[in-house]
Amino acid sequence: MKVAKFGGSSLADANQFKKVGNIIKDDSKRKIIVVSAPGKRHDHDFKITDLLIQLGDAYLNNEKYKSYYITIMDRFAKIIKELDVTLNLIDEIEEKLTSIMKSDLAYDDMLNCFKAVGEDSSAKILSAYLQSLDITARYVNPKEAGILVNNDANGAQLLPKSYGEIYKLRKEEGVLVIPGFFGYTEDGILATFSRGGSDITGSIVAAGVKAELYENFTDVDSVYSVNPAIIKNPKEIKILTYREMRELSYAGFSVFHDEALIPAFNAKIPVCIKNTNNPSAPGTMIVSDKEQNGKCVVGIASATGFVSIYISKFLMNRELGFGRKLFQILEEEQVSFEHAPSGIDDMTIIIRESQLTGEKENIIVNRFKNELEADTVTVHRDLALIMVVGEGMKETIGMAQTATTALGEAKVNIEMINQGSSEVSMMFGIKANGLHRAIKSLYRAFFEG
Amino acid sequence: MKVAKFGGSSLADANQFKKVGNIIKDDSKRKIIVVSAPGKRHDHDFKITDLLIQLGDAYLNNEKYKSYYITIMDRFAKIIKELDVTLNLIDEIEEKLTSIMKSDLAYDDMLNCFKAVGEDSSAKILSAYLQSLDITARYVNPKEAGILVNNDANGAQLLPKSYGEIYKLRKEEGVLVIPGFFGYTEDGILATFSRGGSDITGSIVAAGVKAELYENFTDVDSVYSVNPAIIKNPKEIKILTYREMRELSYAGFSVFHDEALIPAFNAKIPVCIKNTNNPSAPGTMIVSDKEQNGKCVVGIASATGFVSIYISKFLMNRELGFGRKLFQILEEEQVSFEHAPSGIDDMTIIIRESQLTGEKENIIVNRFKNELEADTVTVHRDLALIMVVGEGMKETIGMAQTATTALGEAKVNIEMINQGSSEVSMMFGIKANGLHRAIKSLYRAFFEG
Repeated sequence: MKVAKFGGSSLADANQFKKVGNIIKDDSKRKIIVVSAPGKRHDHDFKITDLLIQLGDAYLNNEKYKSYYITIMDRFAKIIKELDVTLNLIDEIEEKLTSIMKSDLAYDDMLNCFKAVGEDSSAKILSAYLQSLDITARYVNPKEAGILVNNDANGAQLLPKSYGEIYKLRKEEGVLVIPGFFGYTEDGILATFSRGGSDITGSIVAAGVKAELYENFTDVDSVYSVNPAIIKNPKEIKILTYREMRELSYAGFSVFHDEALIPAFNAKIPVCIKNTNNPSAPGTMIVSDKEQNGKCVVGIASATGFVSIYISKFLMNRELGFGRKLFQILEEEQVSFEHAPSGIDDMTIIIRESQLTGEKENIIVNRFKNELEADTVTVHRDLALIMVVGEGMKETIGMAQTATTALGEAKVNIEMINQGSSEVSMMFGIKANGLHRAIKSLYRAFFEG
Repeated sequence: MKVAKFGGSSLADANQFKKVGNIIKDDSKRKIIVVSAPGKRHDHDFKITDLLIQLGDAYLNNEKYKSYYITIMDRFAKIIKELDVTLNLIDEIEEKLTSIMKSDLAYDDMLNCFKAVGEDSSAKILSAYLQSLDITARYVNPKEAGILVNNDANGAQLLPKSYGEIYKLRKEEGVLVIPGFFGYTEDGILATFSRGGSDITGSIVAAGVKAELYENFTDVDSVYSVNPAIIKNPKEIKILTYREMRELSYAGFSVFHDEALIPAFNAKIPVCIKNTNNPSAPGTMIVSDKEQNGKCVVGIASATGFVSIYISKFLMNRELGFGRKLFQILEEEQVSFEHAPSGIDDMTIIIRESQLTGEKENIIVNRFKNELEADTVTVHRDLALIMVVGEGMKETIGMAQTATTALGEAKVNIEMINQGSSEVSMMFGIKANGLHRAIKSLYRAFFEG
């Protein structure tokens, strides 16, 4: 049994719904389908969920909301008509919106109900469409599916007992279509996962039913080994471990919501990233373990927007509690850091630039100077991080040599190397203006060598 | 005005005292002399200070102490006779020891007095010997010199107001010979610095009198660029910054007690390491700043005896407080760590092997697994660290490439690279069994290339 999740781009219009129908028809193992709300049809379009949030906000704040309402209903009506499924569905969606407006729910709970209408309607439409294709299919509400959650301010958190309930879905006949993104509290209140939450539902359901595969349909053929905006037509990654995927996601590979994978990871369910628009492409498999082949680098990720703060103090490493005091200052200033490699008498703190305004920088630099009595505190902005990722890297002689040689050839100065803390990656810090040069040279060395 | 400090090997016997006399005679700027106790004359000899500690321990614990007493007096008598200085000095040293034994000092205070007899007697003998060479010279007790300290259990700590007193020594006529290693509390109790404490006295006095140079006489011509046990006749280091010296000292360069340099460092007094047995050799200068020349690597230090603990946990970097919990466990287990480089979902803790018994290892690994719920915890022993050190390293393209290429050529796998946290060093972690191979290859690359 496979669980297939279709993202917003896969359900953006009727034509996309048809592709999804074909994909489901094509493999009888695709028994449980999790859907997002319709996404953008083109660059300047709106996602249904964004429109629903605007509708909810406007309604709850007694502002004008009709235009949002009309736009939303228009989108759904168009999809329903073009799919030629029962027109009752339009009324059903209208009734849903009206009943939310009439409810006496608390502000946040009502907003959650608005937000969930996109996925909920997607699931109802897809289920009707599958029936029109003579596929035995039905819409399954997350409450019926057994998705019980705590209603946390930062997004709903699954209650572990849900898995037992979800497992029972295995016994159901036909294709089950479940809306992603939301569950219910034990009091029956609808609660939504954090944004990107359809991935979470898919991963939870895959783990719950112990699927042989969790298919994640999106709009790319596969995960690429490097950012296609830097290297044209880069190699596709056929197979990737969870750990490799995490390292790549960290530095800019945002194919999907990686945190969503925790349930699938814990249940060791393999994940396949596939393209709704080209379903015959093999896609990228994400697995717990894989066999090593000769070339261990699978991908090179990179991200800009980092700052480094360098602190030196003579005899720092003999000073008990220095590190702790330093981290306490960062915590008090509510600045979270990414890395903090340390030398003998010095330390470098890597922070995302968004965390460090000029004002905050001044405060922190002064506190480091005054409270830690640091000899030097220097801040460098415009830092880029590069992650060279691959299982088996740690055991392979010459990996660092290949990477540093490639950077040297690209005339890129290495500000930082962090190798060995992770078994599956090497991290390099460079000035952002050398990033394209660096990536091109690294790609050549690891993928074309 | 120069302050010259002579270590134990420089005063091990009468012949060494004569060399010291010539060195002082040779340069009229050498106005303040700080001395250690007589050290070993050969590999199987005892240092006077060790004998004094054994004497004190035995006496204080009502054990037999006569043999220590005789050995000590013998050593001093031999030096005094061979130097042909006034024999009264022998009686003076005997009286000193007898008066300590008769005193009603507390245990630790009395032991401190025993320990200080070595330096004190060295100073008296040297001063008498200088007089016999027609040099105006006198013994100056640390109390007279103004060395006031707090009596801390981990070694005496200087009171900052001492510097004002010490500065007054500038006005004194002739050569002043001050015993190293001890000072006095404001209550007049003798207190000793931590071991290696003559270096501390020398550095304090050099800072106090604002010397133009602090000369540290020992038994090597200079600091070498690499361990001479691995590379025969390695390059000598002519000039070294404080920061470079610290990085080199960390990983095995133990020419002298680097912590002792703090006072000189703070007062920006240049330090020269020189050889009592070859005083015409230029030695190694240690300075605050130096001009950059083309080759920025000054030395390659290395040390064995490290362990790494690798911890991985899926989504570690999203987990607030993970690092803090981890460090708290280490603190509770009283294990201090050297470095803790972190990846995205993993972290490596580098610890000195002496800190981690097998039992402690089990406790920590279990706590990491249970309390941090880590996915993997692995321990690797027999790790060696290599530091490639040099100012200007950070700005020089290709340093990492040269180093990793050298390690690759030596067929040494790199377990860890930490570069960029320090501006003046790159750190590599490798398996200890590849250390000699690695150092030879690095030396070739950086010093013979």
